[in-house]
Amino acid sequence: MPLLTRRLLVIGADAAGMSAASQARRRRPAAELEIVAFDRGNFSSYSACGIPYFVGGVVDDLASLVVRTPEEFREKHSIQVHLGHEVVEIDLDRGAVLVQHRESGGQRWEGFDELMVGTGAVPVRPPLPGADAQGIFGVQTLDDGVAVRAYVAEHRPGRAVIVGSGYVGLEMAEAFCALGLETHLVDGAAQPLQRLDPDMGALVADALREFGTILHLGQEVAGFEAGPDGRVAGVVTGEETIAAEVVVLGLGVRPNSALAEAAGVRIGPSGAIAVDQRMRTSRAGVWAAGDCAEKRHRISGRPVAVALGTHANKEGRVAGINLGGGYATFPGVIGTAVTKVGALEVARTGLGDAEAEAAGFVTDAAIAESTTRAGYYPGAAKITTKLVVERGTGRVLGGQIVGEEGAAKRIDAVALAVWNAMTVEELLGVDLGYAPPYSPVWDPVLAAARKAVDRLA
Amino acid sequence: MPLLTRRLLVIGADAAGMSAASQARRRRPAAELEIVAFDRGNFSSYSACGIPYFVGGVVDDLASLVVRTPEEFREKHSIQVHLGHEVVEIDLDRGAVLVQHRESGGQRWEGFDELMVGTGAVPVRPPLPGADAQGIFGVQTLDDGVAVRAYVAEHRPGRAVIVGSGYVGLEMAEAFCALGLETHLVDGAAQPLQRLDPDMGALVADALREFGTILHLGQEVAGFEAGPDGRVAGVVTGEETIAAEVVVLGLGVRPNSALAEAAGVRIGPSGAIAVDQRMRTSRAGVWAAGDCAEKRHRISGRPVAVALGTHANKEGRVAGINLGGGYATFPGVIGTAVTKVGALEVARTGLGDAEAEAAGFVTDAAIAESTTRAGYYPGAAKITTKLVVERGTGRVLGGQIVGEEGAAKRIDAVALAVWNAMTVEELLGVDLGYAPPYSPVWDPVLAAARKAVDRLA
Repeated sequence: MPLLTRRLLVIGADAAGMSAASQARRRRPAAELEIVAFDRGNFSSYSACGIPYFVGGVVDDLASLVVRTPEEFREKHSIQVHLGHEVVEIDLDRGAVLVQHRESGGQRWEGFDELMVGTGAVPVRPPLPGADAQGIFGVQTLDDGVAVRAYVAEHRPGRAVIVGSGYVGLEMAEAFCALGLETHLVDGAAQPLQRLDPDMGALVADALREFGTILHLGQEVAGFEAGPDGRVAGVVTGEETIAAEVVVLGLGVRPNSALAEAAGVRIGPSGAIAVDQRMRTSRAGVWAAGDCAEKRHRISGRPVAVALGTHANKEGRVAGINLGGGYATFPGVIGTAVTKVGALEVARTGLGDAEAEAAGFVTDAAIAESTTRAGYYPGAAKITTKLVVERGTGRVLGGQIVGEEGAAKRIDAVALAVWNAMTVEELLGVDLGYAPPYSPVWDPVLAAARKAVDRLA
Repeated sequence: MPLLTRRLLVIGADAAGMSAASQARRRRPAAELEIVAFDRGNFSSYSACGIPYFVGGVVDDLASLVVRTPEEFREKHSIQVHLGHEVVEIDLDRGAVLVQHRESGGQRWEGFDELMVGTGAVPVRPPLPGADAQGIFGVQTLDDGVAVRAYVAEHRPGRAVIVGSGYVGLEMAEAFCALGLETHLVDGAAQPLQRLDPDMGALVADALREFGTILHLGQEVAGFEAGPDGRVAGVVTGEETIAAEVVVLGLGVRPNSALAEAAGVRIGPSGAIAVDQRMRTSRAGVWAAGDCAEKRHRISGRPVAVALGTHANKEGRVAGINLGGGYATFPGVIGTAVTKVGALEVARTGLGDAEAEAAGFVTDAAIAESTTRAGYYPGAAKITTKLVVERGTGRVLGGQIVGEEGAAKRIDAVALAVWNAMTVEELLGVDLGYAPPYSPVWDPVLAAARKAVDRLA
């Protein structure tokens, strides 16, 4: 007698959900496990991080952002993906979800044996007066990216305002500048990119101005003004009204966990769905991964919500292996992030000064000014490397790097030092790569470690 | 009563010796410690790794390769540096060295309380017939680089032959091609760069041909032919005679330990001066660092000789701290190296397949083909990442990376994994930097780790 076919239902057909689906399929053939995915959007498995580059025209081919289409999932992996279908309710007692077809509004219940929640994140949109004007966009999904690009093509705005200076805000500022728009960036903080310490953030502010961004720092947005046509006309702060023909909100995202919460799945202190290291939620047979799932920060020890494709892929892989009968765990995060700000490469990992203090560490910091290549080698450019170090033990708690070509991925060396709880003394001894076209004889990370060691001694 | 001034005498005024001198000076003022350095060459503290770029004209300013001049050492650090002075004998019983002025031949004894040996390495020159012809160069010291460049400028050779395909050989091949010489590379092995596994070396061979190098692989050099003017005219192998107007020997280097050995200092199995982790030799008051000093390979556990500026700087620093009354140790090496071969970046760390087997490991390997940026991002280029993994435990023993822009320094992530004895499973979990301009969502190193994990499972 053949095995009863079980059914895995995936909510959200992006990185986390489809990584899980693919891994489960590798371990369980279609005769054993039926896999079906629903997504409210119009794209499956795409690179959300690529959206600003699509809006700015650096990447022109929308299809290139899509890693796998529903057709590929169906034909190569026997996974059914239904786009334009939103799951609006989860009934765990019945083992079914209510799916609504977005276009027609039609609904039906779909049963499952295992449920994979990969609902991602939603942009933070504070309830400000005028926020429903046309031309105000969040940039979170590929559908959002398509909408911004279409709006710009249709209305040819001359002035853009970005609200918020997180990664997406900075990338969108660069995209709009590249399109020739007069671009303003508003943020309540004194420096852009609050995930950097202020000393490093100041370097980013310079880079933003370099390619033409007009900064309005230390100004909280109070609301929006719209014209008689209902389209956004200005961004109102406590100090001024900045004329705007298109606005992008880059105020960060929050985990899209409401659906799971309504179904009785436990939500963690970060607002994301609580999961164990195997990506199991509080309810048997319900898994979560990606932006909607909580992560453990390995250095602070705290539960955190971090929206990033690389985590979503890894967590989805772990969930899928476990779903398929294997064993895998997700070890947590340390907050590594890199971004491009014009010619500048910006990177961070672990804890910054303030984060480390908030987590109960007493810290010191060392900053080294260095070059990306040997000083005499053509193309050598400035690079600033900061290490945040626990006082007393010398343990590396975090690092930040701002510099030109080749700077960003050097953070990986710091990330591995943080990950392995190395001291600066240990890091200083590590045999990193050296050749004049790629590094000075003291690699910038080692130069910072040496400075930290000298300070500790 | 003032303290008796002690005297530190340094043999070799390059990276190791002068790092030691500088660190010792930071801890001991001139009234306590007199520091004097002798070097047989004409330059102090220079970048030997920069020499091929100086010969090829990528770097034009000779002075830019010199980190610190004797004047700077004297004025800023109260360290006396005597260039053109060769130490020809060490008498440890008397606590003195015999110094010979190279130009005049004059000699005198110089006393010391502490002796720092930083004599570096010398190129391997097998005793082949005809090897004393003019126009055959080793490229080890900056004086060598100046000599090659002068010879090329004077004789305008049309054909160059490089013997040996180590790092310096490859860099010199690129330099000669850039100068417009017909450039031949001869090596007894089937692939260039034997420090890579053959599968990765094949990619390097393609890159060498790409910029015009004519490869003669699998051919041992038997001797050299000279013209009636005494200048080299050909390189003779078992199969052919390759016409040559200038020849560079890139057969590697060996530790320059003869002087120390003759004085009764213990030499290790690698041929380099045996030292402990504080850079003390077998004789009290005698220190050694840099290319002439033996290192411990942390993965094989074996004593090795590795000539590389980054080690020389670190070891010199450690010796100088200890000399100055502090405490520091050098933890050993793992064989990390990077180089540029035309548009290709080549990197390795830890043990290769054959090295791991020789060290007693049973290994598996995983190779991932990936891109340096997100596939859709402009400039994404091919990158091949190989991990050498211990069978059973999954421990990362080594890695090799060959790829285009941004490939080389990614080896640092692998180096830190090797350094910390991480398993591929652990490495796969690490939070490395991701953004489309700098990495695909699965970083190439993680892609290789994932492949290795899949293979182990």
